[in-house]
Amino acid sequence: MKVKRIELKAIAEGAAFLGTGGGGDPYIGRLVAEALFDRYGEPEIIEASDLADDANVYISAMMGAPTVLVEKIIGGAELDLSIAALEQYTGRPANAILPAEMGGCNSMLPLAVAAMRGLPVINADGMGRAFPELQMVSFNVHGVCASPMSMANEHGESIIINARNSAETENKARQLIIGMGGSAAISCYPMSGAKVKQTAITGTLTLAQGIGQALAAGRKNGRSIESLLAYLQGTEYYSEARLLFKGKVSNIRNSVEGGFTRGECQITGLGEQSNESLVIEFQNENLVARSGDKIIAMVPDLICLVDSDTGAPVTTEALKYGQRLTVIAANVPPIMRSDKALDIWGPRAFGYDFDFTPIEQL
Amino acid sequence: MKVKRIELKAIAEGAAFLGTGGGGDPYIGRLVAEALFDRYGEPEIIEASDLADDANVYISAMMGAPTVLVEKIIGGAELDLSIAALEQYTGRPANAILPAEMGGCNSMLPLAVAAMRGLPVINADGMGRAFPELQMVSFNVHGVCASPMSMANEHGESIIINARNSAETENKARQLIIGMGGSAAISCYPMSGAKVKQTAITGTLTLAQGIGQALAAGRKNGRSIESLLAYLQGTEYYSEARLLFKGKVSNIRNSVEGGFTRGECQITGLGEQSNESLVIEFQNENLVARSGDKIIAMVPDLICLVDSDTGAPVTTEALKYGQRLTVIAANVPPIMRSDKALDIWGPRAFGYDFDFTPIEQL
Repeated sequence: MKVKRIELKAIAEGAAFLGTGGGGDPYIGRLVAEALFDRYGEPEIIEASDLADDANVYISAMMGAPTVLVEKIIGGAELDLSIAALEQYTGRPANAILPAEMGGCNSMLPLAVAAMRGLPVINADGMGRAFPELQMVSFNVHGVCASPMSMANEHGESIIINARNSAETENKARQLIIGMGGSAAISCYPMSGAKVKQTAITGTLTLAQGIGQALAAGRKNGRSIESLLAYLQGTEYYSEARLLFKGKVSNIRNSVEGGFTRGECQITGLGEQSNESLVIEFQNENLVARSGDKIIAMVPDLICLVDSDTGAPVTTEALKYGQRLTVIAANVPPIMRSDKALDIWGPRAFGYDFDFTPIEQL
Repeated sequence: MKVKRIELKAIAEGAAFLGTGGGGDPYIGRLVAEALFDRYGEPEIIEASDLADDANVYISAMMGAPTVLVEKIIGGAELDLSIAALEQYTGRPANAILPAEMGGCNSMLPLAVAAMRGLPVINADGMGRAFPELQMVSFNVHGVCASPMSMANEHGESIIINARNSAETENKARQLIIGMGGSAAISCYPMSGAKVKQTAITGTLTLAQGIGQALAAGRKNGRSIESLLAYLQGTEYYSEARLLFKGKVSNIRNSVEGGFTRGECQITGLGEQSNESLVIEFQNENLVARSGDKIIAMVPDLICLVDSDTGAPVTTEALKYGQRLTVIAANVPPIMRSDKALDIWGPRAFGYDFDFTPIEQL
């Protein structure tokens, strides 16, 4: 099945929702994908189960601070080079492209590079959401190493990292990101088809598209958020989706630190709720929602900010004072809440001093 | 001709002198080379003119802050891996090893890795001294790019950098050095034999050995510095060698910043000269010798500190309060003072606001 150019809008919007603030601006990602679809044709989308066990699967993504991507726009050349550099290093040509995460920009770029190279894209990813660090993917939870990894930039420069584990790969790549202007195209976790079947979170491109379609459908009668919640609650993965809070942005602290966009955003209630507020803390992605001292949702559960009128997801770098936002939280698939998984992306992995509690218990 | 284990001491000491404070501790480099000679045998030393034009020549060195090398000792494995990683990337096995610089440690490591791999070492380098940054070699002056470059560490990790020019290769490698614990084994400037003949500073291993031998000979009758100066003045490259100052270290400022050892050292005269002093400023290597406001020697001319009793060269990281030191300066070969060369390693390349003046005019 081909991914149609016209479907990119829904996929990008749905992935931006799942991106929980991170994964980069969906609009920019979509422009890149549309331009490359126009030039190279639409790519096939395949299921993980369709992969040959010995297929060579490569990830494609942009790494860096999403804030930077808004100004330093992505070209196809660096995406292409990141795949080519890793192919050359491993000596194995790519047979399919796998998204690392669902996030606005990083859901589009695998489609874009697949179009360029005439390869299929797998309907799956490594988290069913977005996370800020390379080691935070289901592949790593199941023992696949991020190395060898490639990085490429707009100057035709490429780097191969062969580190001893995924966290060390992240460390080295992050040091380089800063000197590469804050972002770079990457490919990592080169895997066989068999490994993808064992380790990926499947069906997530279709899920993103479904979310985007639900938003578009609801928008027609001004009920986009209700439509979104109903869709999420009907999915296998996000059945506990709920509305946490509604208000307007009353404070933002937002800076690029160590190659990430870090900070927090305060949302204050409207009308009768104007003495209530919610603070969202983020590192590229939204990590924790706090109401006073009480945490009401935490990573890896989804904490998503959407425009209260249109339901459009709002990414971290697009937060603005005075925006009317609705905060939606959702559970993640059980595989992402296992002890092994929480070691890698639970609250403690982000420096918090508490264990994970699911939203349905908060 | 084999490099004999017994000759390592003279080469290391001579190279430490030419290293002008940088290039790492000669003692540590010698221990590594001796251990590898014992295990793998002594390597051949060949002249650049002996190389086949299509030979594949690889550089071997440690990159980082010399201060770190004292505590984080080099093993053979990372040197070997740095060569192997670059061979794999280029698809061309090394036929000979070329020193990047003459400096205590970095004159020994090419000999060590050549022993391990059963390859000859070329009697040449890229500067006939030591410099702190990758782009500061004669290869780059003549248009050879430092990329592709490999880095390897004691954890079996390797990185390949393919940057657009030598300065960008340095930038990326330097960012990684910090996260690799302050030092890493590297290979870069992969070149043909023909390119080496065009771009290398030849005969410098032999020169280092001659300097070491002159020191040892002079030491027998307590006249090591006189013997050293006489030897230097008789060479083709360093005929303007002279004694600049004698005194004791009265102040040291020395820190690891951005992957370099940076700082300055004040030497105060003894006896009647106790109201005179000389300040040596360094970035791994000694860059400038100042007497009050007057600069009396500057990079790329050699500014070397030796122990006033033994003539033993003192590297930047080994400077100690109270040491009795003699400051010797020498010219460098004319090829290193060309306008093109001074753009890369003249005083302005190190952030100074003045042009190069040769020591013989100061």
